[in-house]
Formats: sequence, C-alpha cells, structure tokens
Amino acid sequence: MTITLYDLVSLTPGIAWSSNTQKTRLCLNFKGIPYRTEWVEWPDIKGVYEKHSLPASSRFHDGSPKYTLPVIYDPSTGATISDSLAIAEYLEKTYPDTPKIFPHGTVGLQAPFEDMYIEHSKSMVPLLIPNICRNIMTPTSLPVYQPYMEKLLGMKMADFDAKSEVAVEKWRKYKENLEVVARWYRKTDGPFLMGDTISWADFVVVSIMMMFRAVWGEDSQEWKDVVSWNEGVWGNLVEELDRYTTVF
Amino acid sequence: MTITLYDLVSLTPGIAWSSNTQKTRLCLNFKGIPYRTEWVEWPDIKGVYEKHSLPASSRFHDGSPKYTLPVIYDPSTGATISDSLAIAEYLEKTYPDTPKIFPHGTVGLQAPFEDMYIEHSKSMVPLLIPNICRNIMTPTSLPVYQPYMEKLLGMKMADFDAKSEVAVEKWRKYKENLEVVARWYRKTDGPFLMGDTISWADFVVVSIMMMFRAVWGEDSQEWKDVVSWNEGVWGNLVEELDRYTTVF
Repeated sequence: MTITLYDLVSLTPGIAWSSNTQKTRLCLNFKGIPYRTEWVEWPDIKGVYEKHSLPASSRFHDGSPKYTLPVIYDPSTGATISDSLAIAEYLEKTYPDTPKIFPHGTVGLQAPFEDMYIEHSKSMVPLLIPNICRNIMTPTSLPVYQPYMEKLLGMKMADFDAKSEVAVEKWRKYKENLEVVARWYRKTDGPFLMGDTISWADFVVVSIMMMFRAVWGEDSQEWKDVVSWNEGVWGNLVEELDRYTTVF
Repeated sequence: MTITLYDLVSLTPGIAWSSNTQKTRLCLNFKGIPYRTEWVEWPDIKGVYEKHSLPASSRFHDGSPKYTLPVIYDPSTGATISDSLAIAEYLEKTYPDTPKIFPHGTVGLQAPFEDMYIEHSKSMVPLLIPNICRNIMTPTSLPVYQPYMEKLLGMKMADFDAKSEVAVEKWRKYKENLEVVARWYRKTDGPFLMGDTISWADFVVVSIMMMFRAVWGEDSQEWKDVVSWNEGVWGNLVEELDRYTTVF
C-alpha cells in the first residue's frame, strides 16, 4: 500500500521545490514509508481537497477557505491529511515502528520551534516569491499564483528589484535572524538541533534552505550566501539530510 | 559548598515571587544542588553585579546596561552567572550527575520555546505590574521600581483600572494566547510538555503562573481564572512542580 503525496509541480519536471511539501517528503523517506508523488498545478490544489472530501486546511482572515499542500492519502487506513505538521504526527502514530520524527516526546517543543523559525524567516519571503514566479511556476500555474501572491504581499512582481535598498535590507535582516537560529543550534555539538539525533526541527530548517536551492539555483549568490553563513551550519545540515530528498 | 541565589525581596519576608528567579530555584531544587537565597532590594541589583565584577546581563535599546536577577555565585567553581537560561545551562554542565533540565539534548528546542512562551504572555504584563507595585515592592524598592516600570510600559500606575475595557481585553487576549500553549501541551499525554519528563519548558511555564499566585494571591479572580483555563492544565502543572519551590 503506497501513500500518495500531493506536491506542487515545477517548470523542471520531477524537481521538488516547495518547503512545506518537502517536509513531508523528508518524513516519508526518513521513515522509509513507501509513497509516490502526484504533481499538482497551483490552480488544482482545491481539486485535491474535493476529490478526497477534505475540509480546507486553514482559513484566511476573511474566513474564506485556504487550500494548501502537502496533502497525503494513505490507502492502508483510508486517511487523507493536510498540513505538514499534522501529517508528521499522523505518520508517527500510524507507523510506530519507523524512525521517530519527534524523539523522546518532543512534539510539544517542536511545534513552537517551527512557529519561531518561520517568524525568523519571514523577511526573505518577498525576495523569494518573484523568483518562484520566474523559475518555478508553469504556464498553467503562474496566471493564478502571481496575482494571488501580489495581493498577499502587496507588491507587483514586475516592480521587484533584487538590488534595491529595500531588498538588500530584507536579506540582511534575514541573515541577522538566522544568526538567532544558529545560536540555538550551537547549544549542542550538532549537526542536528538535538545533537546527533535528527528531528522535525531539522526538517523544518532545511526545507526552507532546499527551497532556496531549487528556486534560486546552486550557482546563485543567495544560495552561496546561505551555505556560507554561521560557519556553514546550514550547508552542513542540507548535506546531512539530502539523503532523504529522493523523489518517489 | 553552597551556591548563592540572589533573588528579589518581597513585602512578605521569605516569599519568592519573581518568575525569572523562580526558574533558577526550580532548577536548583530539582537537581538537588545546595543553595541559599540572598534577598536583594530592586535598587541594589546593580550592586550584586559590582560585588562579583559581573558584566550586565543585557542592554537596553539605547545601549545602557541592564542589571537583572537571578544571579548565582557558585563558590565551588568561582563562577558568577546571570540570566536564568544561562544559569540552567551552567548547572547542567557543571553538575552532570544531577537530573537533567534539558533531557535528550533538547536545549536548542527549549530556548526558542521560552521566547515563544514569553511572546504569548506579554499581554498580561501591564495588568501584573501595578499589583507588583501594590503587593510586592518594599518601601525601599517601590520608589525606584515604579517609575522604571511606568517609563517602560508607558503608563501611570495610579491610572490603572483592572476593570477597564482595555484591561479586560488584555486578559482575554492572554487567555487566548495560553490556549495556543495548551495545544502544545496536549500533543503528549502530559502532565509535562515532554510527556512524563520534566524539562526547562515546564519551569518556564509555571514560573509565570507561580508569580501570579504570589502577586495576586490564591483568592484572586486572576489566579482562579488561570487554574481553571484549558481543562486545568496550568493548575495541575503548578501542583506537580510545587515540590521544587522550597526556599532555601
């Protein structure tokens, strides 16, 4: 029985890029649970929910439903789950004999860690999205994705200039915030947040870094920046966890 | 060799009330490390730093030094340490054969948990401080503490009205934020954040609750509120950890 992982398609076939779906892929590969990826165009996410009669994963401020990926369908239990943390908790409970994503009962610590990490990553989002529009979105997805993001961020992609003072300041701010995350990592001997034990927190952290690599490319200055910051902690972490990124 | 814990004096002799120093007391008692409390008046905190030639624990936005308690002095190593988290990390390293505050290498998860918890507690600070002025501060401390806090919070203690719309809204907001923290607690079977294992996160959480009890009193509506919220999770947690609050 093979789990279906619904993931967002990219211009380059077979390349995973979304940090949220990557967290689920890391979990599935780490646990060694068989799955196959079903690629979804941005406008078709709602259809995945409808197909499985799944309620929206969350709501916008105005109360309208928000449909997001990842979603998994597990034929062995009949369950369909959205939201990467909920999926990780489901996998942990349903497949108890696989390696632990939340070792030693740390799930209540891992959830706020993720919130805190996202808080520290926000400033780079407006720099990333224009590049997702340019390098990732397909001709089918772009016409829906771009106006959605322009509304959400209150910016026109055409106006974006990576060399502008505002953009440079946001990248500097992001570097400064990552320094805080690095201080948490330095509290153990590493390479993982829990020392020699892999956990959800590491998947959360590298999923964003891996998205940079997919969106900006390995030759970009942005990628070179990130892997060089904080004595290479992020580059090392990606290297350690790359073995769990195989796309099935 | 007995550690000295510098703690803030209260109107009622021998009663510990500050959440930050309480975290250190919980650590010392939990680990069974001998210590004795030295009570300090608010204006005399700086003197503790000077006595031990200790640099300020942090700085204000304008760069001026910030002197805070707890501070511990450990005669067996000669170390003087400020900041409750730094003290906990010091105790964990210096006394490795005592019960773990950061079990299973979780220190890198526990530090951001604390930041996140404080973020979720902020809205009640302006409600608490006027009661600290009224019920806790001694005649020696109050004339320094009160103007300091009035400047920090941008409010006059004399203007404070616990029944005002603003105050009621802040308390409602606090309750709402604690619901988020309770969701993290519900992820295991409890009673602690890591299930049946006590850790720093629990000390962080109860130290605030215990401060409520000391400041507002056990008969106050505020204390009754807190112990009743979220199916009594906070009341239970305080009860579980009260055995580590003895003042030596």
